[in-house]
Amino acid sequence: MSSLDELAAQLDRGRLLTDPDVVDAYRRDEAHLVEPGQPVGVLLAESTADVAAAMRWAHRHAVPVVPRGAGTGLAGGATAVDGCLVLSLARMNAIREINPEDQLAVVEAGVINAELDRAAAKVGLMYAPDPSSYEIATIGGNLATNAGGLRCVKYGVTRDSALGLEVVLADGRVVNTGRRTVKGVAGYDLTSLFIGSEGTLGVITSATLRLRTRPATEPVTVAGSFPSLRSAAEAVSAIVAAGLAPSLLELIDRGTLRAIDEWKRMGLDDVAAMLIAQADGTDSADCAAAMGALFEAAGAEFVAVSSDPAEAAQLLQIRRLAYPATERLGRCLVEDVGVPRSKLPDLLEQIEQIERESAPHGVRILTVAHAGDGNAHPTFVFPPTDDGRVPDAVWTAADRVFRAALGLGGTLTGEHGVGALKRRWLELELGSDAMDLHRAIKAALDPTGILNPGKGF
Amino acid sequence: MSSLDELAAQLDRGRLLTDPDVVDAYRRDEAHLVEPGQPVGVLLAESTADVAAAMRWAHRHAVPVVPRGAGTGLAGGATAVDGCLVLSLARMNAIREINPEDQLAVVEAGVINAELDRAAAKVGLMYAPDPSSYEIATIGGNLATNAGGLRCVKYGVTRDSALGLEVVLADGRVVNTGRRTVKGVAGYDLTSLFIGSEGTLGVITSATLRLRTRPATEPVTVAGSFPSLRSAAEAVSAIVAAGLAPSLLELIDRGTLRAIDEWKRMGLDDVAAMLIAQADGTDSADCAAAMGALFEAAGAEFVAVSSDPAEAAQLLQIRRLAYPATERLGRCLVEDVGVPRSKLPDLLEQIEQIERESAPHGVRILTVAHAGDGNAHPTFVFPPTDDGRVPDAVWTAADRVFRAALGLGGTLTGEHGVGALKRRWLELELGSDAMDLHRAIKAALDPTGILNPGKGF
Repeated sequence: MSSLDELAAQLDRGRLLTDPDVVDAYRRDEAHLVEPGQPVGVLLAESTADVAAAMRWAHRHAVPVVPRGAGTGLAGGATAVDGCLVLSLARMNAIREINPEDQLAVVEAGVINAELDRAAAKVGLMYAPDPSSYEIATIGGNLATNAGGLRCVKYGVTRDSALGLEVVLADGRVVNTGRRTVKGVAGYDLTSLFIGSEGTLGVITSATLRLRTRPATEPVTVAGSFPSLRSAAEAVSAIVAAGLAPSLLELIDRGTLRAIDEWKRMGLDDVAAMLIAQADGTDSADCAAAMGALFEAAGAEFVAVSSDPAEAAQLLQIRRLAYPATERLGRCLVEDVGVPRSKLPDLLEQIEQIERESAPHGVRILTVAHAGDGNAHPTFVFPPTDDGRVPDAVWTAADRVFRAALGLGGTLTGEHGVGALKRRWLELELGSDAMDLHRAIKAALDPTGILNPGKGF
Repeated sequence: MSSLDELAAQLDRGRLLTDPDVVDAYRRDEAHLVEPGQPVGVLLAESTADVAAAMRWAHRHAVPVVPRGAGTGLAGGATAVDGCLVLSLARMNAIREINPEDQLAVVEAGVINAELDRAAAKVGLMYAPDPSSYEIATIGGNLATNAGGLRCVKYGVTRDSALGLEVVLADGRVVNTGRRTVKGVAGYDLTSLFIGSEGTLGVITSATLRLRTRPATEPVTVAGSFPSLRSAAEAVSAIVAAGLAPSLLELIDRGTLRAIDEWKRMGLDDVAAMLIAQADGTDSADCAAAMGALFEAAGAEFVAVSSDPAEAAQLLQIRRLAYPATERLGRCLVEDVGVPRSKLPDLLEQIEQIERESAPHGVRILTVAHAGDGNAHPTFVFPPTDDGRVPDAVWTAADRVFRAALGLGGTLTGEHGVGALKRRWLELELGSDAMDLHRAIKAALDPTGILNPGKGF
């Protein structure tokens, strides 16, 4: 009996795929610049028992396992390696419980983020974390990368909505971490250790998640166009200093606005920077009005405030068009640096400088930012090459942006993760002793190194 | 040269104490029921270099190290063991930075919680976590136990305000975890791993902490007296369901109210339960009015709403008197169970039942609760014994309360920690596989087992 047949015999309800064409679709995520390896097969797990059987088998045969949700990751965390089993959690998509009294949900890892939010909405609640891919991304992937999103400026990142996890360990044992209570300090914070570990310490099979009361009214939207990046950044600082709590606060730079305008003709071609904000909850009108006033005080040339859903959708459309408009210009590397909020204008100015110096080498940089979090997504745009290789000038420019963020007290990655893309820079941020700690923890939880090798650190 | 002399020679500015009378004051924290061991000495560290020297020395000589802040812990996490070095961080009390633009502070571990909050107040900010001991407890101890407090119902626990840490490892190396940014996912969440680890994985020497905009006005206070525990609990559920965000929501039970009334004659002797709530921020008046209405709808017999600081202080005084009033009745074991919020009335009714059955054995149970978090502090009161021993009936009653909380999907400890007091119950909550994970992580970070042995798990 071949090794894969042995696994197939031990499955609960899961399906094992080995057809090369089918397997090919599971070799990579949305980090298109990472070159994947060749898996021996793909397991579509249907239950925790399937995942446990797979890990017991992989442990016994020293087979690398690459867990994945919907494959929407941007850092290559779900990239296959040669000889691996790809372990898809996408079919474990049961919402086991929505509990309005305790404002929590228990869901399997393959549940789509937006589906959980819609299920919560039926009882007046919401699941707050909303990465841009929320309509297609799974909760398991969100947890594995500790995904952010637009609303996290008010409601926190994925970790802030996670109460507990069910995790299959490297040897196939199933552990539960955390709890159903709001507070709890019994034992180490294993929940936080697994969240953001990018499948390198265990496979998250289900989670107990915190829900929140859904605001009863539509959010109020505020948009402002600014004569300079710095004046927009000043408006952001003023909002933070005033203690206002926007539920969304996005910045779009000149390059991105021009790309949108070239495509859609929205009269944005001479705007230096734009801010789009929303306020939700009982004080949304007051909060939005206050933000509008702070936009004007910071020098905004045009400010629109609207509580009309159709108008809000139009304003938000500008933000939604940012990526597709950028992608029209060439191949893209979407990056994800973060800095202390006050340093965002410095970072953006340094990125502009790097862009000026990269342009002669065919690299453009267009940036949007979750401004309220100091988290910027500079996208490096470059022409396709015949051999599909990424030009060195792209990595040179990215390297400069990473070092600029670190130099400002920032981070390589605000919400996308390290994955396969950013490992070579990680020690610059963490230092060698912290890297040693990572290796010690990895060795303790995955002594044979089979869990998502080559990812995360 | 004796071993302690060797340590003394390697210190930066710290002082090593060996006088038995002086050392005696450092043998225990506020968990008076735990019997401490005999340390070989006490190091009053003045710098990270002192802590690193101590850990290098302890590692070399296999000396157990018991770190401590102000010794206000209630679970015995800072209890000395025989032959240990007590490592006091209390003198590392510099506030290194208060940064209003990025709303963060960098402080040494020995800074008193309230002093940080006062320093933040000077620039219009606040440090939100406020354990009851905030006027005397250190930030390092708060972090080591992941302390909660009254305001955490709105602002989260200590972990939710921690961005990064400086930690001295078991072998004396110094690592920095986390970052100065709001978001960041580079590497494992080591910050959360050290927070709440009760000194068993490393010694926290400083921290980068999140500050928040300080509400411009005094909070509005709402107090209500209820005809039954269940009607008070219903008011709490209604507040949660309405999406209101009180900054404080405390419940006091009949036994505690009677103890206060016997002492202070405040007309509380026939009140079955009392709720005290506060609302802060821009919508505090609306929020408080809404809470008052929900108190009445749930059957409150008397509701007071006040934005007058003197009146608010009077209402809060009832809550503040709870412990001292309870302590007048005998020796006390203060406990700290948590349940999902909807289960709080069930827990309190089970505690009442346990009290009825424990009373013939001389054990009373008086309870206050952070009701908005489902976190109850039942205090077991019993008469002093000649030999100082804790009567078995106390542990029997506590055991029943712990099992009641776990049976309701809850936890042994919402905010005090496991320390030395609750280790024997921990596996009931975590399960044996999760306990194995704890041991694996401990072995990875502290292979010789010198860091706070016998605590935490």
